[in-house]
Amino acid sequence: MTDTTPHHSLTLLGLGDMGTALARTWLAAGHSLTVWNRTAAKAGALASEGASVAATAADAVAASPLVVVCLLDDASVGAALDGIDLTGKDLVNLTTGTPGEARARAAWAEARGARYLDGGIMATPTMIGVPEAGGYVFHSGSRALFEAHRAVLEVPAGARFVGEDPGHAALHDVALLSAMWGMFAGISHAYALIADEDIAPKDLAPLLSEWLGAMGFFAGNAAERLTSGDFTSGVVSSLAMQVVGSGTMLRTTEEQGVSTELVSPYVDLLRRRLAADPAAHGGEDTTGAVLLLKR
Amino acid sequence: MTDTTPHHSLTLLGLGDMGTALARTWLAAGHSLTVWNRTAAKAGALASEGASVAATAADAVAASPLVVVCLLDDASVGAALDGIDLTGKDLVNLTTGTPGEARARAAWAEARGARYLDGGIMATPTMIGVPEAGGYVFHSGSRALFEAHRAVLEVPAGARFVGEDPGHAALHDVALLSAMWGMFAGISHAYALIADEDIAPKDLAPLLSEWLGAMGFFAGNAAERLTSGDFTSGVVSSLAMQVVGSGTMLRTTEEQGVSTELVSPYVDLLRRRLAADPAAHGGEDTTGAVLLLKR
Repeated sequence: MTDTTPHHSLTLLGLGDMGTALARTWLAAGHSLTVWNRTAAKAGALASEGASVAATAADAVAASPLVVVCLLDDASVGAALDGIDLTGKDLVNLTTGTPGEARARAAWAEARGARYLDGGIMATPTMIGVPEAGGYVFHSGSRALFEAHRAVLEVPAGARFVGEDPGHAALHDVALLSAMWGMFAGISHAYALIADEDIAPKDLAPLLSEWLGAMGFFAGNAAERLTSGDFTSGVVSSLAMQVVGSGTMLRTTEEQGVSTELVSPYVDLLRRRLAADPAAHGGEDTTGAVLLLKR
Repeated sequence: MTDTTPHHSLTLLGLGDMGTALARTWLAAGHSLTVWNRTAAKAGALASEGASVAATAADAVAASPLVVVCLLDDASVGAALDGIDLTGKDLVNLTTGTPGEARARAAWAEARGARYLDGGIMATPTMIGVPEAGGYVFHSGSRALFEAHRAVLEVPAGARFVGEDPGHAALHDVALLSAMWGMFAGISHAYALIADEDIAPKDLAPLLSEWLGAMGFFAGNAAERLTSGDFTSGVVSSLAMQVVGSGTMLRTTEEQGVSTELVSPYVDLLRRRLAADPAAHGGEDTTGAVLLLKR
């Protein structure tokens, strides 16, 4: 049989845990891969798996039209690419950073003649190349670049395009991580509350999962309210009721000898929203708290 | 046809929004219901629906062997039942309170010759009598009382027994609400991050739901780790990695002009856990933060 898989040529700068995991998936998919790392030792194993190891970043960039960068931080990207000709290159930056760093790096790359696509990896290195792990990468910036290289970009963990603003991949990444840490914080508080009780964490776990699943409607509901500006129609649990309930929650937390540090900031925000205009806000749901977070 | 439904006789003290909703479900189920409220006006509508209205709390308690209480707070329960003979009564307290209040009220009721069951209602008044709304009531305290009256107690919104410690119903209630508020806080932060961006909340919502659903495994995983004490086996995203990622999250939050108040406490906790012993804790997941919450 003839191998009909379209093989592409690409370069990867950066062989940390994530870069190495990405590299292996491209090699496994039969792509022609050139790699470079600031410290050369990490490239050795990949060379034995078929990667071409470039001696310098400039050599690596020159080797392929598609250059993927996965370094420690944005400053490392600037340092690695400093003085290197990027004319006509397609630069995909998977380095973790802020939306502002992504936007500045996009302008920097475009000023040097490159097309730029940013990426936010919603996965850990161990999830790369493991489709059932459910990881994926948000991309934003040049749609043309994304479409041209989509098949390659999807290899490690899938790829989702979220807009032409190069900062939006990083912003989506951070938004989802924030929500996750909020959920983790809430779950952590719940377990701290039962720490000295005759309640097994394993017995609380399914109740937590069921309850959080049922309350997950808030994400969609809040989105509708933020779009319409209507915070009161169809409210099941009012801000006034939740503020009362939060008082019992804080008193229980103190009773159980648990710090209120994880739960009091959201309670404070709900109380501030209610206090600003009890008649107007008491019948709202809790979405109005979002408005108080913006400085 | 003969009506074979077993009809029971019970008393309800307290006709706020929740009490009224509970009362209607028992009347609709054909139970013989005696009601009392501190201000009599609220009982009028229920009388026309078939409830017997008692003139005093003592009369109401005397009318039935099963007495359900749903008042404003624990102090109201003490005030309403002060001096009333509870000998041989089955007292079910659905008043919102702390675990400590429930335990003290149980001892108080038992000293007066009553059996005591506490309840934590995981529903709003509008969810009572609406099975598809998914509400339920945690109960703890006298298992004999729960089993004797289970059919009646299940009428408004289902009933789940969580142990013989009378404080555990309230504790389960608060634990689940804490986790919910944590998730709400995280989601609120995510929406605040995109407030001035060309990203529609409705486009972020399904991504948030999908991501939080995928990360919901943390509840069960943390329970296993808290039970075994093993915080490092099979870790997908290490504490060290998450602390690095949280730095990007905080910088992004500042960049976006959003307050860090909802997200910094959990980050601080993760950093404290890591700093306490980087070599020992760096490879853990984030469950260890739970240990720092206990005072």
